[in-house]
Amino acid sequence: MTSPHPRFDIPPDLNVEESYQLPFNMHDGKLHVLIGATGSVASIKIPFIINKLFEIYGDRVDIQVVFTKNSEHFVNPGKLLQSVGGQYATPGAAGPAHHPAIHSCPSGEDFSLPDMKINIWRDNDEWRLFRNRNSPVLHIELRKWADILLIAPLSANTLAKVANGLCDNLLTSVIRAWNPQFKILVAPAMNTYMYSNPVTKRHLDVIRDQMPWIQIINPIEKVLVCGDIGMGGMAEWANIVDRLVQELGGDDDSTPTESSAPLSSVESFNPN
Amino acid sequence: MTSPHPRFDIPPDLNVEESYQLPFNMHDGKLHVLIGATGSVASIKIPFIINKLFEIYGDRVDIQVVFTKNSEHFVNPGKLLQSVGGQYATPGAAGPAHHPAIHSCPSGEDFSLPDMKINIWRDNDEWRLFRNRNSPVLHIELRKWADILLIAPLSANTLAKVANGLCDNLLTSVIRAWNPQFKILVAPAMNTYMYSNPVTKRHLDVIRDQMPWIQIINPIEKVLVCGDIGMGGMAEWANIVDRLVQELGGDDDSTPTESSAPLSSVESFNPN
Amino acid sequence: MTSPHPRFDIPPDLNVEESYQLPFNMHDGKLHVLIGATGSVASIKIPFIINKLFEIYGDRVDIQVVFTKNSEHFVNPGKLLQSVGGQYATPGAAGPAHHPAIHSCPSGEDFSLPDMKINIWRDNDEWRLFRNRNSPVLHIELRKWADILLIAPLSANTLAKVANGLCDNLLTSVIRAWNPQFKILVAPAMNTYMYSNPVTKRHLDVIRDQMPWIQIINPIEKVLVCGDIGMGGMAEWANIVDRLVQELGGDDDSTPTESSAPLSSVESFNPN
Ligand SMILES: Cc1cc2nc3c(=O)[nH]c(=O)nc-3n(C[C@H](O)[C@H](O)[C@H](O)COP(=O)(O)O)c2cc1C
Ligand SMILES: Cc1cc2nc3c(=O)[nH]c(=O)nc-3n(C[C@H](O)[C@H](O)[C@H](O)COP(=O)(O)O)c2cc1C
Ligand SMILES: Cc1cc2nc3c(=O)[nH]c(=O)nc-3n(C[C@H](O)[C@H](O)[C@H](O)COP(=O)(O)O)c2cc1C
Repeated sequence: MTSPHPRFDIPPDLNVEESYQLPFNMHDGKLHVLIGATGSVASIKIPFIINKLFEIYGDRVDIQVVFTKNSEHFVNPGKLLQSVGGQYATPGAAGPAHHPAIHSCPSGEDFSLPDMKINIWRDNDEWRLFRNRNSPVLHIELRKWADILLIAPLSANTLAKVANGLCDNLLTSVIRAWNPQFKILVAPAMNTYMYSNPVTKRHLDVIRDQMPWIQIINPIEKVLVCGDIGMGGMAEWANIVDRLVQELGGDDDSTPTESSAPLSSVESFNPN
Repeated sequence: MTSPHPRFDIPPDLNVEESYQLPFNMHDGKLHVLIGATGSVASIKIPFIINKLFEIYGDRVDIQVVFTKNSEHFVNPGKLLQSVGGQYATPGAAGPAHHPAIHSCPSGEDFSLPDMKINIWRDNDEWRLFRNRNSPVLHIELRKWADILLIAPLSANTLAKVANGLCDNLLTSVIRAWNPQFKILVAPAMNTYMYSNPVTKRHLDVIRDQMPWIQIINPIEKVLVCGDIGMGGMAEWANIVDRLVQELGGDDDSTPTESSAPLSSVESFNPN
Repeated sequence: MTSPHPRFDIPPDLNVEESYQLPFNMHDGKLHVLIGATGSVASIKIPFIINKLFEIYGDRVDIQVVFTKNSEHFVNPGKLLQSVGGQYATPGAAGPAHHPAIHSCPSGEDFSLPDMKINIWRDNDEWRLFRNRNSPVLHIELRKWADILLIAPLSANTLAKVANGLCDNLLTSVIRAWNPQFKILVAPAMNTYMYSNPVTKRHLDVIRDQMPWIQIINPIEKVLVCGDIGMGGMAEWANIVDRLVQELGGDDDSTPTESSAPLSSVESFNPN
């Protein structure tokens, strides 16, 4: 479906015009889900998560996605948009991909439900939107807009930035400036050896102790892309959606979706 | 005023020539103020600070500025130079700006006092100056030159790097290699939610406990650029100048400048 | 010597072809030494270390090197290859250097022993190799291949990343995903003031306490490139080779090499 007023925008190296309006609405009464994608293979699950949320909530939900630069090796923003029904705002607006080799969304799935339109944001958009003192500050506006932030997957590197307070890109700036009255759900996903490195526990402990608004969806044991077997794989995407729905409410019955794997596998590690 | 031997240099992608001499003097008996600019809107106050220092000290002060890449979204190095009287060392020496959209210095002010010449340094200059084992190491030479380092504003991100010992750019390398016999003054400036994030207190505590040569000029409550109201705004620039003058001495009477806002607003938060 | 199947590869901006095989062998019975180079002047000692290892082990050792972007200011990967006998895999495979001014290996030395062939890896190679879910994950494959990782020199910045769990490039990803059954040797090298900054001790303590598989080869007092004298210089490269040989075994007698400086200078600081 081609929307007459597409809400999507990955613009080129130019500044947006003075007349540019942020393509989202603070007060439309919808549920506002902000999704963060990081440089883990599990980012290929993001289209499934988005799809399911539209399936559950229909047009009562609005979704925006913030990409880290490295996440684009795993999800192609352009293809994600195609698959969920969005489009570019203007001819040529896509701009060059960060990386020449961009991997497509999972194929063989029909994501083309009508009205699935999402906004995708990349680091450079912060600066493109900033023209003068009265310009919107993107990481602040996204935080104000969002009812919840889901980071799935959360890479080891972005986990380290969060625990250490670094904010050198759009996603970590949103996190650093988060309003603690709202929740952040994070689903770590990493190689088993990365996960069992003591520094991971240190970071997760910092989050549990000092940032109670961030909730950790524990990883699970699985065969990882690198061939290693063990703890560290991202929780099943369907379980991640369930957790999100539990936090967000507003679905018809607020019970786990049919397609969910048993929740126990999500909770098996570190139950406190 | 066009100086015959301009001290300014933002060179292009080429290496400087073998004959290049660092454009500053270790032993000229002047007061040497190194200023660090980071990616906060409050960087637009830097020209005011520089101006005031020249007003107070005249030609008894030498000023150099180190920009982080993101600070250039807020202060245009080229325009800063124009406004304070410097110029490019050679035709074309400016090189492309890091960012296409660079915001000008506050206009409607007359900064063009004669003899206001400053050096501006960017990350790439470290590598441009390094040609062989005998080359000067820029972050070390700047540290040796400086009587004091003022970082105003200090962004949340650079604060995190300092507290965590990261040094991936010129400014943080200067800080990491600092001689503790000299002072560093930092004026944090960030969104209220960034500031009230517990990670900020953790970073400031690390600085207070382990890096006593770094003194924190507390932020103040103000209406921030993003519309939020609250703690986190950079202290008034005039108060920052006063603190710098108190540390540096050498002014005629070492008392607060007339234009200063009451110091109490600077000290109001976290008085120990 | 021109090898018909060169093991070296610094490819251009293109993706490698589907048929690309990782140019190293997990199970060839050789000793596998992975070397990390970081942005310290002491990286110019890496060719000496490589040379000595080939001298000691001959063709019983395989060596691969991972460069951080900033390390290439100090060792030119292309020249390193020339000097140790490797070559580019295909015409044009070298790609542009990260930095226009790349400093050569120490000259006046004859490194051209036959059979000295090494692989050199740069950050971008991670992404070039990743084409689909079945692609090898470079930082994992390198870790699996390596019997030991030597980071000499270890810069202050990479030390901070290791202690804080950041993994934003190939080298730190290898470290973050390390299998603790194998050793990592690190030889910090930095300016004296960087070294005496309390943050250095904090980082080294984290490593000693929480990452016992990482062993620190203490720096020594020397006249540094910046003219300062003091603690922080990288241990003598010959002593570093001795430590590596002690850990690795497999040399003819496992005793220190003749050329070694006395080990006491390596151990002088912080003996516990
Ligand atoms: C093929 C491939 C797969 C990767 N998978 C993961 C992963 O699952 N989890 C993770 O933490 N890092 C993974 N990495 C490493 C990260 O991409 C790397 O640390 C990166 O710097 C993370 O960037 P970001 O946190 O800014 O998105 C992978 C890297 C490659 C090349
Ligand atoms: C319009 C705009 C204004 C910003 N203002 C601030 C600020 O006042 N304080 C802050 O800590 N970060 C602010 N940020 C975020 C930083 O620019 C960002 O974290 C950046 O990575 C900091 O880089 P630096 O510390 O290397 O200079 C702002 C970002 C934008 C787009
Ligand atoms: C000429 C020159 C020499 C340097 N020597 C060192 C050094 O010996 N040790 C160090 O920790 N940093 C040194 N630095 C600073 C690092 O290169 C800088 O912190 C860089 O970001 C490190 O990057 P890396 O850790 O990713 O390799 C030097 C910088 C320059 C310009």
